[in-house]
Amino acid sequence: MPQGGVADRANQVSTLRRIGHQRFTSEVVGRLLEAAADEVAGREPDSFEASLVRVTRRDYDDMVKLPAGLVARQAREETISHPIWVEAKRLGDWALFEPRMAVTVELARQTAEALGYQDRPYDALIGLSEPGLTTARMEALFSQLKAEIVPFLGAVAERADRVDDSVLSRPCAAGPQLAFSLEVIQELGYELERGRQDLSAHPFCTAFGPGDVRLTTRTGKTLFDSCVFSSIHESGHGMYYQGVPRALDRTPLWGGASPGVHESQSRLWENLVGRSLPFWRHFMEPMRAHFGSALDGCDAEGFYRAVNRVQPSYSRVDADEVTYNLHVMLRCEIENDLLEGRLAVADVPEVWNAKLQEYLGLAPAPVANGPLQDIHWTFPSLGSFIGYTMGNLISAQLMETVRRDLPDLDARVEAGDFAALLGWLRANVHSHGRKLTPNELVERITGKPIQPGPWVAYVRRKYSELYGID
Amino acid sequence: MPQGGVADRANQVSTLRRIGHQRFTSEVVGRLLEAAADEVAGREPDSFEASLVRVTRRDYDDMVKLPAGLVARQAREETISHPIWVEAKRLGDWALFEPRMAVTVELARQTAEALGYQDRPYDALIGLSEPGLTTARMEALFSQLKAEIVPFLGAVAERADRVDDSVLSRPCAAGPQLAFSLEVIQELGYELERGRQDLSAHPFCTAFGPGDVRLTTRTGKTLFDSCVFSSIHESGHGMYYQGVPRALDRTPLWGGASPGVHESQSRLWENLVGRSLPFWRHFMEPMRAHFGSALDGCDAEGFYRAVNRVQPSYSRVDADEVTYNLHVMLRCEIENDLLEGRLAVADVPEVWNAKLQEYLGLAPAPVANGPLQDIHWTFPSLGSFIGYTMGNLISAQLMETVRRDLPDLDARVEAGDFAALLGWLRANVHSHGRKLTPNELVERITGKPIQPGPWVAYVRRKYSELYGID
Repeated sequence: MPQGGVADRANQVSTLRRIGHQRFTSEVVGRLLEAAADEVAGREPDSFEASLVRVTRRDYDDMVKLPAGLVARQAREETISHPIWVEAKRLGDWALFEPRMAVTVELARQTAEALGYQDRPYDALIGLSEPGLTTARMEALFSQLKAEIVPFLGAVAERADRVDDSVLSRPCAAGPQLAFSLEVIQELGYELERGRQDLSAHPFCTAFGPGDVRLTTRTGKTLFDSCVFSSIHESGHGMYYQGVPRALDRTPLWGGASPGVHESQSRLWENLVGRSLPFWRHFMEPMRAHFGSALDGCDAEGFYRAVNRVQPSYSRVDADEVTYNLHVMLRCEIENDLLEGRLAVADVPEVWNAKLQEYLGLAPAPVANGPLQDIHWTFPSLGSFIGYTMGNLISAQLMETVRRDLPDLDARVEAGDFAALLGWLRANVHSHGRKLTPNELVERITGKPIQPGPWVAYVRRKYSELYGID
Repeated sequence: MPQGGVADRANQVSTLRRIGHQRFTSEVVGRLLEAAADEVAGREPDSFEASLVRVTRRDYDDMVKLPAGLVARQAREETISHPIWVEAKRLGDWALFEPRMAVTVELARQTAEALGYQDRPYDALIGLSEPGLTTARMEALFSQLKAEIVPFLGAVAERADRVDDSVLSRPCAAGPQLAFSLEVIQELGYELERGRQDLSAHPFCTAFGPGDVRLTTRTGKTLFDSCVFSSIHESGHGMYYQGVPRALDRTPLWGGASPGVHESQSRLWENLVGRSLPFWRHFMEPMRAHFGSALDGCDAEGFYRAVNRVQPSYSRVDADEVTYNLHVMLRCEIENDLLEGRLAVADVPEVWNAKLQEYLGLAPAPVANGPLQDIHWTFPSLGSFIGYTMGNLISAQLMETVRRDLPDLDARVEAGDFAALLGWLRANVHSHGRKLTPNELVERITGKPIQPGPWVAYVRRKYSELYGID
């Protein structure tokens, strides 16, 4: 968008958001919901009708608390913040972004106050996207994860030479990256009849509707920053959207259970499948056909080891599985401190660097690769990062049940048969659309609420083996 | 868009269109307009307030006649028709598009009936986009134009060898086309701070708002189908949008007077400026710097002559100035016959070919280059083509006044000074936004209502000289 378009877009988006909000939160809708509740009383809670009323009621009860002016202002400020973030990141200038970050925090506070909360303002924000999640629960999760990961990371660091990823530094052209990644995601089950893959500065998945679920990706110069894993990741989101039953089209039940559950699908395909040895036993030769001599002397096991090298770094999106949650923790803690007034916006870079040192053992980051690296703080609310960690946890918890139901999963993946896994996800996750909350969904599938145990066990097992840790 | 997205987009666009229509045509708006009319009584008709009420009232009186269901269905059917048209064009299969064309005609009839008309249903449709224009006036214009152009075209054909455009068949890479065209349109006055140029299958200009006015263009393989003239054309639309005063932002007065007046701006820059000898005296060397040896042995006069070769062809968008209006005439006559029930949709290709022979002396066209060549019949209304001819006429009529006010225009253009011309257009055309109807605008500027004389005189003069006709 040309620079001059920011004000127009801010006006347009905020007008549309305001009208949509006013229409949904009107008294008419409230009365219709009450009448509908009477009508569905006694129906199966899982039925389309009962779920529709229950979920729409929850949405309504949340949204009706937000003044239309606040919703419109959020849309406006987000649009205004975006190009300033781009520029601040380019210049590495936190001070330039600081006033916009102050707006984000201010509007997040207003949103929390409007939604209401029992204990902590952050409850209102993270509970909105991940229903049932509280700040206390988040902090407990983080402290368990930190207690597990930080020492484990130490053990890995002592054995850093056990995993060689030098093959990833070999150059690799953009064309083969795109061709191979498109081949992979179609084989996994992403449908091009209802999707496409394009290029963008930052990979994302967006659904214009159930028939038009698009992915973007970005190519790099080497195997390390090739688009393969980013494409697999986004296709996980895409397959979730494409898997929601068409009977839920154009209803509030369409879409994913939450950003966290969405992320469980993308992370499951990217990491638990895409960074597994059986996966590369299947895809090594097809990849070689695209990438040619860039893979000379590298076999499936070598490539598997390379793409699983643990290496603390500044970048969340490029982080390995072991360190990824530490990046999320750092952001959530900062957000919560900002919201509860213990941290000033001006001090974010300093606190960022202190946590970077503490959790990841890294020297201070340039702000462009530090607090300005993610787009999320241009959204004038806080609380969106936690979905990434919830996604990691859920993906591992689901995978334990997948392996119980499909004991030959590894053999199937190695044979290039992804249909059983996708079918399982379709039946157990995608089929519910937004009917269930994240915890309801996970408990129904795995018998237990969302918990960190399976993820910790998965990471310890996989990386202990890779790094020869007893 | 993936094929699967058509239904989603049809739903979304029709919902948005319906909501927008319902909001605008609500009784509340009607009452506000009445109150506003009282408030502005006695103000200068040209004042912002009086114009705002007058133009919004006209829009309201038109729109209130259209049932919301019809508006929503138009949006839906347009979305559905588009990919079918693409496919029918690809296959050269009119029968495939026929049911969609039938929908277009049916909805055009419903629209005309809803809007109402005194004499002919087409009046309602062309009057909606070009206020004041009637079918009878259009037919009179066409018959004058036909009487002038067809014999003149005969005289040109007898001297076809006088103009050599062989230079245009030389190959020319896409990169230099885009770089040179971007240089040209910026020099003309198109602002990149509030715009950009991208690639698309069919060139167009779209304004997301006054600060974001975008152009698309398409490159070709030779100088003949290079993007230069298409870029200049679209920049004419773009400069019009960029020239509307910011005081009219977000009001119904923002935008152009009509599609025809819009086209007058694009055609003026493309043809009356861009296909003139002074223009190429200025731009020949800059173009040579981009295109290199492709222009060896060709000077400004040679290039000027080449880009003005008259050659009846199947394609409207590539038509030369002399034959262009015949393409428009053909379509408008067919539309009117369809609307008045004298022509069946199935017979359109046959009638198309008969007119092609009569007006342009051409053998029958393959349907892909015949009735399927334009996108317009996917729009479920008719009456949009006439704007192209109105644009041609208005451009020449305005140019007569420009030349009176700026007698040294040619010298300025040759010196690369386009600011005086753009300033004139800004002051006399763009500054009014939608305040005036096309006829009011043209009469205010030129002292006369829209008429074909200046265009006929311009074409006869220019092409008589080029072809050595006495």
